[in-house]
Amino acid sequence: MEHGAQFLEKYGHDKDGNWYFSLNREGKPLIAPYNIFSDCFATMAFGQLSKATGNDRYARIAVDTFKNILKRSENPKGIYNKAIRDTRPLKGFSLPMILCNLSLEIEHLLERDFVDETIDRCIHELMEVFYDKQSGLIRENVNPDGSYSDSFEGRLLNPGHGIEAMWFVMDLAVRNNDKALIDKAVEITLNILDHSWDKEFGGLYYFLDIKGKPVQQLEWDQKLWWVHIETLISLVKGYYHTKNSDCLAWFEKVHEYTWSHYPDPQYGEWFGYLNRRGEVLLPLKGGKWKGCFHVPRGLYQVWKTIEKMELSQKRDA
Amino acid sequence: MEHGAQFLEKYGHDKDGNWYFSLNREGKPLIAPYNIFSDCFATMAFGQLSKATGNDRYARIAVDTFKNILKRSENPKGIYNKAIRDTRPLKGFSLPMILCNLSLEIEHLLERDFVDETIDRCIHELMEVFYDKQSGLIRENVNPDGSYSDSFEGRLLNPGHGIEAMWFVMDLAVRNNDKALIDKAVEITLNILDHSWDKEFGGLYYFLDIKGKPVQQLEWDQKLWWVHIETLISLVKGYYHTKNSDCLAWFEKVHEYTWSHYPDPQYGEWFGYLNRRGEVLLPLKGGKWKGCFHVPRGLYQVWKTIEKMELSQKRDA
Repeated sequence: MEHGAQFLEKYGHDKDGNWYFSLNREGKPLIAPYNIFSDCFATMAFGQLSKATGNDRYARIAVDTFKNILKRSENPKGIYNKAIRDTRPLKGFSLPMILCNLSLEIEHLLERDFVDETIDRCIHELMEVFYDKQSGLIRENVNPDGSYSDSFEGRLLNPGHGIEAMWFVMDLAVRNNDKALIDKAVEITLNILDHSWDKEFGGLYYFLDIKGKPVQQLEWDQKLWWVHIETLISLVKGYYHTKNSDCLAWFEKVHEYTWSHYPDPQYGEWFGYLNRRGEVLLPLKGGKWKGCFHVPRGLYQVWKTIEKMELSQKRDA
Repeated sequence: MEHGAQFLEKYGHDKDGNWYFSLNREGKPLIAPYNIFSDCFATMAFGQLSKATGNDRYARIAVDTFKNILKRSENPKGIYNKAIRDTRPLKGFSLPMILCNLSLEIEHLLERDFVDETIDRCIHELMEVFYDKQSGLIRENVNPDGSYSDSFEGRLLNPGHGIEAMWFVMDLAVRNNDKALIDKAVEITLNILDHSWDKEFGGLYYFLDIKGKPVQQLEWDQKLWWVHIETLISLVKGYYHTKNSDCLAWFEKVHEYTWSHYPDPQYGEWFGYLNRRGEVLLPLKGGKWKGCFHVPRGLYQVWKTIEKMELSQKRDA
């Protein structure tokens, strides 16, 4: 695994420590570091690698990158941002969402107070600012003061995003021993599922409009692999923590959809992109956005959660 | 019509004359002038408006914007370009394509020599550089020396783009009295159609890969309004100039698809985005990319070409 790390350490970032979106085979950058999520994934990878190897150099890369993310978080796209922020200054759900997960992934490298504070701030953003009490759903973009923006961006729902964030929140709630927060995350998961499940063809939509208007994304009705595996994680964790039977019923439904649609029976691995009817839209297994990330992480998370359930059943028996 | 022009003159561009991609209702810019096609449409609009009104101020805006486009043409996205050009420096078909059309739209405002030279250069780019002799198709991106790049971008086909460009070329060929060029444009139109027509559900695909590999664009199999109306223009012009019966047969086929799928029988106007099966995917009539442009221009071009055919038939009778 250190081959990959050494390649990335050498070629993956610019001189200021910003991580490129993509490199060519020789390691030359193809796409500028416009996307802060490259930095998030680098932080995760080097943070965990430092844990596995005990190598301090990897730890330092993780921490430096994490600090850089926080520094850039007010305007994550920097000079590559095409939106003129003064006119309609929206803030997005992605960054506080991923910081929730990230701060746990590299908790062993950070000061306790700093982690506590970051986690509190992110939970507040997710569960009070982006969460819309009226609909029970998670918004993708809000005004800087948290209020609703009646625009394409402000009306946008990304069901997979919202559901994925809920298992990050459940993990944080376990750390903070906050039972009420777990219950709320489970409730939101079920709300989003109920709202975003395609009653005609099955599967979860990729994008929706909170008022039911047309969205801008031409791919809105497609059924994506990561949306479904992330949903399985939230449901299995939700069931483990709460024994809510709706979680189990939904888990079985989404499990059935996922395993009958995504795995490629001929060559293995999963297809990523299905059309609304669940037919394979793009047969590629890896691409600009589909890497070796969601599937192994998802399988691991579901497996480990079910294992814990088994152990606790054995203990109770 | 001058209301719109005055609004755009006042709010539409930055202090260097670069045109914003979008404004809000009050005229404040929402999206930076990252997209040079905003400038192309402004040039067309003010060029034609100067013709209609005789107002020199409009003519100056058109010419200044046109010069600015040529100045930016080496790196159209400027600072907003996320691709690192040194690593894989591709050039795109869009700009020479639209310049073909643009130079005729504002010919009355430019020096004769300058127009001739621009047209020659653009025809060369389209018909020799981006045209792939082997497949008979038009590539969307090539290496700077015109050679093939075996990458997602280099393999990309945008059938509607290629076909639309062919009627621009036919118009230029008429101006230059170049019969061979008309024949070649008609041949390429038919090649692209034959290659890009969905044999199962009808309609033209939005994107394809020249090697038949999966593309990056999730919307690749959708059937877009502008692709079909632009195809009708190329076919009717092709038939008018060459009497090639394939043009007529294809015109009838595409006409039938277009008129049975795009017009909204209830509220008028056209739907823009259909899924592969031809079902309405997004019911909006206007959005970020669908404006009041392709449909009226297309209907006008088809109408005027058929009118010329009728007149010449009457003359011959």
